[in-house]
Amino acid sequence: MQIYGDLGSGNCLKVKYIADATGTPYVWHEVLARSGGTASPEFLALNPAGQMPVVVLDDGRPLAQSNAILRYLAQGTRFIPADRYDAAKVDEWLFWEQYSHEPTVAVARARVVYDKQRPEDLDPALVARANKALDRLEQALTGQNFLVGTSLTIADIALLAYTRQAPQGGFDLSGRPALLRWIAVCEHELGLPAFTAEH
Amino acid sequence: MQIYGDLGSGNCLKVKYIADATGTPYVWHEVLARSGGTASPEFLALNPAGQMPVVVLDDGRPLAQSNAILRYLAQGTRFIPADRYDAAKVDEWLFWEQYSHEPTVAVARARVVYDKQRPEDLDPALVARANKALDRLEQALTGQNFLVGTSLTIADIALLAYTRQAPQGGFDLSGRPALLRWIAVCEHELGLPAFTAEH
Repeated sequence: MQIYGDLGSGNCLKVKYIADATGTPYVWHEVLARSGGTASPEFLALNPAGQMPVVVLDDGRPLAQSNAILRYLAQGTRFIPADRYDAAKVDEWLFWEQYSHEPTVAVARARVVYDKQRPEDLDPALVARANKALDRLEQALTGQNFLVGTSLTIADIALLAYTRQAPQGGFDLSGRPALLRWIAVCEHELGLPAFTAEH
Repeated sequence: MQIYGDLGSGNCLKVKYIADATGTPYVWHEVLARSGGTASPEFLALNPAGQMPVVVLDDGRPLAQSNAILRYLAQGTRFIPADRYDAAKVDEWLFWEQYSHEPTVAVARARVVYDKQRPEDLDPALVARANKALDRLEQALTGQNFLVGTSLTIADIALLAYTRQAPQGGFDLSGRPALLRWIAVCEHELGLPAFTAEH
């Protein structure tokens, strides 16, 4: 499998996490969106939406949208619950992530990291929506180690990527103990370096 | 099954479409978000995210996120392809819809319909993103009747709801013939009243 992505992007890191966790062999192709890498005719042939990540399967067929790729690669593994309702709750988190978490937490972080805005200069409405998303995660993770059921699923993988990077956008996670514990447990399960060392 | 939604919302209509198409019995509970209906303690107990639609299954368990509900209700039916790759492409459209179509086409329409903005006063950047999403659909549907494969799937249902309502936001579909033909075919398949009569 070929993965076209940016290792600084949480959406792309999700795909790396699941490929590594499932032992799926891949070649990583680093794409620089800010240098026009997603606007080239070659890239648009893989994904007309011009968005990363994209994978190209071994038969040459492309698949885009990070959470669709997560579902595809995790199918039949322990990372998608066998129970039909639990699997639907995983889907609920995946869609919530793309609608309420990524457009707030990740966008705020991108403005600081790439556009060099200071956190205190970010749009207050954006910061409020991001904090609301982080609070929702804190609430959901209070008293449980994972978002759905009792083991790590692609719901955790989808939310982990940008939540780990949230401090880069000026978000303070220290008042969210359940979230910090969840990050540590997910890192342990996925064999990732510790959060505090990376940020 | 109980459905909590707003018949003016495309996200909620998706759930009605799939429930009707699969013959799933339901009771519809109309919720008025603008009168605080999604902020009540009872509603937040069903969906802490405070978003519609939500369904309550016959065993009392809730499920939120329109596209997660589509996947749940369509499982094992002709509305999700049996082929693994085709099913993943359906997922790709579902996530694209929530990330690139709903936040642009539906948001612009909501500002006109509910906030009484004139289409010509809408944020030009929002209108441009919405038109880009509609153009992407037109491109994808040129030469084919459905988004994935040769029959109607939940990808079509997810995109149909707000695309049908786009003219209410000031978007002119007359220059997008593939999209108009697709709307007509989907309406026929789903037994919906014709687009031109409704708008």
